[in-house]
Amino acid sequence: MVEQIEILLPSYQRGFHLITGVIEDSLPNLPAVGILHLFIRHTSAGLTINENADPTVRTDLERIFNKLVPEGSKEYIHTMEGPDDMPAHIKSTLTGQSVTIPITNHHLNLGTWQGIYMCEFRNRGGRRKVVATIYY
Amino acid sequence: MVEQIEILLPSYQRGFHLITGVIEDSLPNLPAVGILHLFIRHTSAGLTINENADPTVRTDLERIFNKLVPEGSKEYIHTMEGPDDMPAHIKSTLTGQSVTIPITNHHLNLGTWQGIYMCEFRNRGGRRKVVATIYY
Amino acid sequence: MVEQIEILLPSYQRGFHLITGVIEDSLPNLPAVGILHLFIRHTSAGLTINENADPTVRTDLERIFNKLVPEGSKEYIHTMEGPDDMPAHIKSTLTGQSVTIPITNHHLNLGTWQGIYMCEFRNRGGRRKVVATIYY
Repeated sequence: MVEQIEILLPSYQRGFHLITGVIEDSLPNLPAVGILHLFIRHTSAGLTINENADPTVRTDLERIFNKLVPEGSKEYIHTMEGPDDMPAHIKSTLTGQSVTIPITNHHLNLGTWQGIYMCEFRNRGGRRKVVATIYY
Repeated sequence: MVEQIEILLPSYQRGFHLITGVIEDSLPNLPAVGILHLFIRHTSAGLTINENADPTVRTDLERIFNKLVPEGSKEYIHTMEGPDDMPAHIKSTLTGQSVTIPITNHHLNLGTWQGIYMCEFRNRGGRRKVVATIYY
Repeated sequence: MVEQIEILLPSYQRGFHLITGVIEDSLPNLPAVGILHLFIRHTSAGLTINENADPTVRTDLERIFNKLVPEGSKEYIHTMEGPDDMPAHIKSTLTGQSVTIPITNHHLNLGTWQGIYMCEFRNRGGRRKVVATIYY
């Protein structure tokens, strides 16, 4: 059995954002056992799982990702959409565009400290679309 | 329901390559709703999703990945298969070996600008095998 | 059909570890065709797939990941759990927390050189939990 919905996220500023609550509020009742697949339909944003408690983890992730993939390098050829665009594509491949989470006892079986992150790599990314597919 | 096929990709030169068309042409008719899982059976290549329009995005990705994981560093111990081998393993872990894409209305539900990339990290990788599994 | 179990891994020291055997020994009989999803319920460890033969690949991965995400940088704000903690969170997002592997003819359809890696990014991570979900 497969259920699928599209979730239109609110607009987030550039950075890493905890969206576990937004996702859970959007989902239908979950099956007893299964898998949730989330897929962001963009190439300059990403999805990942990381720490859900201390917001400085998100701040540090944003800073270190900017160091790993610096903006304004003379080396980029693809610059027509602005200096944040090509780094955003590279970061999106580093994080990935999907996460897959087990469902157990009708709930997402995340670890105690795990949350779902939306990674907004553009300065003005706007509202992003996520396809949620539940199979069971 | 699960359907599975193996796809033998053409040989690609080192770099990032758009393979959406090759994959779609190889797949059977897609179900109304489901998931496509693609898995590359190699440790020196990867799969990712990124921009499908401007080929310079692929050129930039190749250059920046070579900067992130430089070849010829004296630090590598695993060098017996050539200078491109150990960097290829590391890049493969950074991109991942699989992508999972929602199927909606009998089509891959990629965003407007999303395409499937095969990342060839070896100088002479040869033909690579991808296992495609559709579940619905 | 979905089957799900939780696997409690042995305690591993910091580094990249081949766990294909541990996982296979923990799984029930596999279906003819399907998918195995493994999910590590932690934010300072990861799962990936890489070379299963030469252990120096794992040594090199550990060294290069430490270069990509250095410890002891003055830039981290999230430092209260020790100098290895924030780098561990970043590395976990780089590798990912899950792998998804096709099942073919009742076996994991890994390539000849592919193995499942557990990436322990903490100095003392303890025993880690993995949720294994098989769908077919």
